[in-house]
Amino acid sequence: MPDEASLPTNHLPRVLGVDPGLNITGYGVLEQGPAGPALCEAGVVRSRSAATLETRLNEIYQGMREVLLAFTPQAMAVEELYSHYERPRTAILMGHARGVICLAAAEARIPVYHYAATQVKRLLTGSGRATKQQMQQAICRELSLSASPEPPDVADALAIALCHHYLAKRSVLLS
Amino acid sequence: MPDEASLPTNHLPRVLGVDPGLNITGYGVLEQGPAGPALCEAGVVRSRSAATLETRLNEIYQGMREVLLAFTPQAMAVEELYSHYERPRTAILMGHARGVICLAAAEARIPVYHYAATQVKRLLTGSGRATKQQMQQAICRELSLSASPEPPDVADALAIALCHHYLAKRSVLLS
Repeated sequence: MPDEASLPTNHLPRVLGVDPGLNITGYGVLEQGPAGPALCEAGVVRSRSAATLETRLNEIYQGMREVLLAFTPQAMAVEELYSHYERPRTAILMGHARGVICLAAAEARIPVYHYAATQVKRLLTGSGRATKQQMQQAICRELSLSASPEPPDVADALAIALCHHYLAKRSVLLS
Repeated sequence: MPDEASLPTNHLPRVLGVDPGLNITGYGVLEQGPAGPALCEAGVVRSRSAATLETRLNEIYQGMREVLLAFTPQAMAVEELYSHYERPRTAILMGHARGVICLAAAEARIPVYHYAATQVKRLLTGSGRATKQQMQQAICRELSLSASPEPPDVADALAIALCHHYLAKRSVLLS
């Protein structure tokens, strides 16, 4: 990654990374700190599994609205649409959750960026086939964390946020 | 179907049938008329295909909110979740649209009912494998329409609304 000292940090947007799921949606907010990307906040939005689909979607939507309101990110980053073909039921349900999350971004008037899982892995580890452990190590290193974020949904959200952060930085440096 | 004259019509909810799609979402509102189910309104909500995914989802969501506000249905009926396994890309995108449509129902505090395509076909024609033409004929017959509703998304939405209407009526008559 480029030398942080040379960076016009005020041009880098605060980014919200999201790992959508009907049960657990992980999120992480990053901004440019003095020595690289800095973690503002991370957590999960859960929906009650006993509730109806529409109630659960409303819980996810309201949770994301709260995060957007509290941390006012300027961009949202989520995993690419078609990464879960092998499990269609999960993918379609995830699509519902992803739909209301994208809607929350549209209402907050922030753009949504989509990244393939392989792209996120390659950017953080150099390999599109990095293991979960390699990804956790990369996240801890980049954000100076002593332990990997839990649950894994948070780690995935932070990985996507980091991916966007570095691509945005690269584009600022090249512009 | 049971004799309409014996029916306590005020117990039958006005139902909004929806055929979700990212490009075109068909809808139809039915209520109990003096001689059977009556069409209140039907139409489509379109999203601009050149817009971003989040903007399109917002257009669908706002369109559904307008329909819910204008016709105040007491129930929403949509096709079952997992009818489109064979085309995963379409199914996942449709899941996004379906997500924001269910959310609009949750915000309007109306329940969402899910029906499998075969169930809708069987209820309206007697066969779970009815052709498109047989379905169109059934919709025209049940709603006393002289021509099949266009585009097909509207016909599909009306078929789902009719399915819910008759099942709700059956349940009222049995209770």
